[in-house]
Amino acid sequence: MSFHLSDTELEELRSILAAGGVAGTQARLAKLHPADMAELLNRLEVNEAVRVYEILPDEPAAEALLLLDDEVREKILEKLTPQEIAEQVIENLDSDDAADVIAELPDEQQDKVLSHVEDSEQAGEIADLLNYDPDTAGGLMDKEFIAVHVNQNVWECIREIRKQAEEVESVYSIYVIDEEGKLLGLLSLKSVLTKSLRTPVRDVYNPNVISVKVNTPKEEVAMIMRKYDLVVVPVVDALGRLAGRITIDDVVDVMQEEAEKDMQMLSGISVYSEQQKNRVWSLSRARIPWLLVGLAGGVLGSRIIGTYESQIQIHPEMAFFIPLIGAMGGNVGVQSSAIVVQGLANNSIQPGDMVPKLLRELAVGLVNGLICSLLILGYNLLVSDSMNLCVTVSVALFSVILFASFLGTFVPLTLSRMKLDPALATGPFVTTVNDIIGMTIYFLVGRLMYSA
Amino acid sequence: MSFHLSDTELEELRSILAAGGVAGTQARLAKLHPADMAELLNRLEVNEAVRVYEILPDEPAAEALLLLDDEVREKILEKLTPQEIAEQVIENLDSDDAADVIAELPDEQQDKVLSHVEDSEQAGEIADLLNYDPDTAGGLMDKEFIAVHVNQNVWECIREIRKQAEEVESVYSIYVIDEEGKLLGLLSLKSVLTKSLRTPVRDVYNPNVISVKVNTPKEEVAMIMRKYDLVVVPVVDALGRLAGRITIDDVVDVMQEEAEKDMQMLSGISVYSEQQKNRVWSLSRARIPWLLVGLAGGVLGSRIIGTYESQIQIHPEMAFFIPLIGAMGGNVGVQSSAIVVQGLANNSIQPGDMVPKLLRELAVGLVNGLICSLLILGYNLLVSDSMNLCVTVSVALFSVILFASFLGTFVPLTLSRMKLDPALATGPFVTTVNDIIGMTIYFLVGRLMYSA
Repeated sequence: MSFHLSDTELEELRSILAAGGVAGTQARLAKLHPADMAELLNRLEVNEAVRVYEILPDEPAAEALLLLDDEVREKILEKLTPQEIAEQVIENLDSDDAADVIAELPDEQQDKVLSHVEDSEQAGEIADLLNYDPDTAGGLMDKEFIAVHVNQNVWECIREIRKQAEEVESVYSIYVIDEEGKLLGLLSLKSVLTKSLRTPVRDVYNPNVISVKVNTPKEEVAMIMRKYDLVVVPVVDALGRLAGRITIDDVVDVMQEEAEKDMQMLSGISVYSEQQKNRVWSLSRARIPWLLVGLAGGVLGSRIIGTYESQIQIHPEMAFFIPLIGAMGGNVGVQSSAIVVQGLANNSIQPGDMVPKLLRELAVGLVNGLICSLLILGYNLLVSDSMNLCVTVSVALFSVILFASFLGTFVPLTLSRMKLDPALATGPFVTTVNDIIGMTIYFLVGRLMYSA
Repeated sequence: MSFHLSDTELEELRSILAAGGVAGTQARLAKLHPADMAELLNRLEVNEAVRVYEILPDEPAAEALLLLDDEVREKILEKLTPQEIAEQVIENLDSDDAADVIAELPDEQQDKVLSHVEDSEQAGEIADLLNYDPDTAGGLMDKEFIAVHVNQNVWECIREIRKQAEEVESVYSIYVIDEEGKLLGLLSLKSVLTKSLRTPVRDVYNPNVISVKVNTPKEEVAMIMRKYDLVVVPVVDALGRLAGRITIDDVVDVMQEEAEKDMQMLSGISVYSEQQKNRVWSLSRARIPWLLVGLAGGVLGSRIIGTYESQIQIHPEMAFFIPLIGAMGGNVGVQSSAIVVQGLANNSIQPGDMVPKLLRELAVGLVNGLICSLLILGYNLLVSDSMNLCVTVSVALFSVILFASFLGTFVPLTLSRMKLDPALATGPFVTTVNDIIGMTIYFLVGRLMYSA
């Protein structure tokens, strides 16, 4: 009873398509859920996908178009005239999705497409939506909401809802507004269905409604909807007038993007352009900045070690443990910073929690530093003749772990206090600084021990 | 018009509470959204939180209880008798949340609480839900759905919906079932509101409904709801009978947990016990395993470098670039593996895509490896007298970056093919192996160059 497309089915379809039987699969394809159509099209070659798209029924195809890789969508839209885009695509979409498709078109084509949208109300709504910043509530909202006036009664509401519902795919909430369009509250479907028909809306609506403003950043919209378990949230303009609604499906995508962006930044990957995600050059460009920072850190490290050249010549065993000191500082720093970045992202840590978080991470660093340095001490006592080396490695390792715990906590909290994204400079930056400081500590301790 | 609690308000409330004015804040507290109540209680000391909880109205307090830190919730539940838990908490919750609260109680208390739940239907539903594995659809679903029989007409449906709606907080979908309770399809609110009252349900319901089974893993439920943009999904048993429904708010939490778990594993943090998330010892235990792996890797690295002791004595400048080689291998490996783990998690990469992904990552490694090794070559030519060192560092750096790109791609894809979690061993494991291989390559190249 599910539309779900299994891997074998997908392979089967692909092989039928490969054998040239596009028309033969039409009936089967037409029954697919738009999300499955998109999955299939995304796995085909671009030209193959364009050919298959043409034989799909308009309505699910329009929905599928939204989910296609940008490259495929571009190619498909290029093949359609403005009138075809308006009639086959735009008129089959909700206003927010329609605006997203139009926003991707070249400027001069946008107006042409809009002029071919037959329903002038829909065209007006889309034109409105195009004005909002895509990273704000205005850019996420759609216009398919149901609103009733506070002076109506339940019976008038039901008539109003029946009228409006023809254009609204899914009814989640009924909004109550005043004469000026200001949002006053919510009317639950439950009260519509259970209250007597003559009850005035004024007596049964719930004035405690959580709303967002058109210019609320999309990350904040996601945070609010997640915190308050909302399926839909109304959007109001500067005057408090109801401007649209945001449904959870759009916000789920925002949340996923946020989590993925954080993980990428922690891994040293900047601006990851989805547009050209398969081109080697754009992948390389997204990764090179942090590699260059690492390279500069490595050069700095080489200069620090260089000042101890004569010491290494006399005690080459000092060089053996350079990778261990570097790696452990890096590992501990990444652990602390990942926990802090994640806590800041899910609001379980506040930017002001500096002192308690630092103390906690330092306590963890103390425990783990002790364990690790005692273990390495035991190992060195067994295999090495040099007591100096044994003590140097363990003291340096302990200090480096403690310092890395501090830095991994301090950097993201400080960035967050400065209203910068804590994930921005945390991962590779913390690792690189830890490497440099680690080498300094190691050779300083070494000089002290060997000269003692 | 929003319930949202600002930081200053929160501080204000905390200071009133600190001054002993619990009763004075009752009116203000009672008006808070449950999510804000929970946020406030979580920021208070445990004993303070228990005291404040007692003065909150039962219904929002029960909702807030679900969102409290485990420690606080335990303390509050300990203070309540089984009868109080049943009347103040359980009866104010949806069946899924009620089951979650009861599941946390000691075994002998569970039955006592259930026996005090007055509504025997609710008690039966909760007892049912307690049987399901919390990591499956059965463990996420609630029983608050509305179902109508396929043989009814729209008018009978509306009567049925009015009756059932009194117990259902939010009506998202109306399910159509047959005499045996098997799920046949969906009836949209739109058709209920717009079709003539005598229309048979049989003629207007939509048989294309996406459902999950009670034993579907929760990660798969999340994936399906996200893919198909579902706000609610019905759950059926082995016979296809409607057993419950899962709403998006529960699934949003699952998705967030998944993303956070991946990021933690990539950062070298294992079993991160939410239960005791603030105890230093449990934080330390979650991080020590990968630190020990790193330590073992460092020891292995020291043995490898140890075999080149005499070479270091003659050419101590070889030691200068050990951190650079190690750090760059680590950085590149983390970049590649983060992208692959993320792609596997969001289904944009399939486990079978080994060859194309390897080729792409190797191509990126080739470009970035060339850039980095040419830059370091330029630097070394400027500052170093030893042509051997210049060539050694650049050749080794290039090889290490290429190898790290390979390993960072190969390991998560292989784990995923073996049906293991690709994030499990990817982060610190890849870094550690890269470190060891990096040292081996560096000193091998060095020996070749210097002996040439």
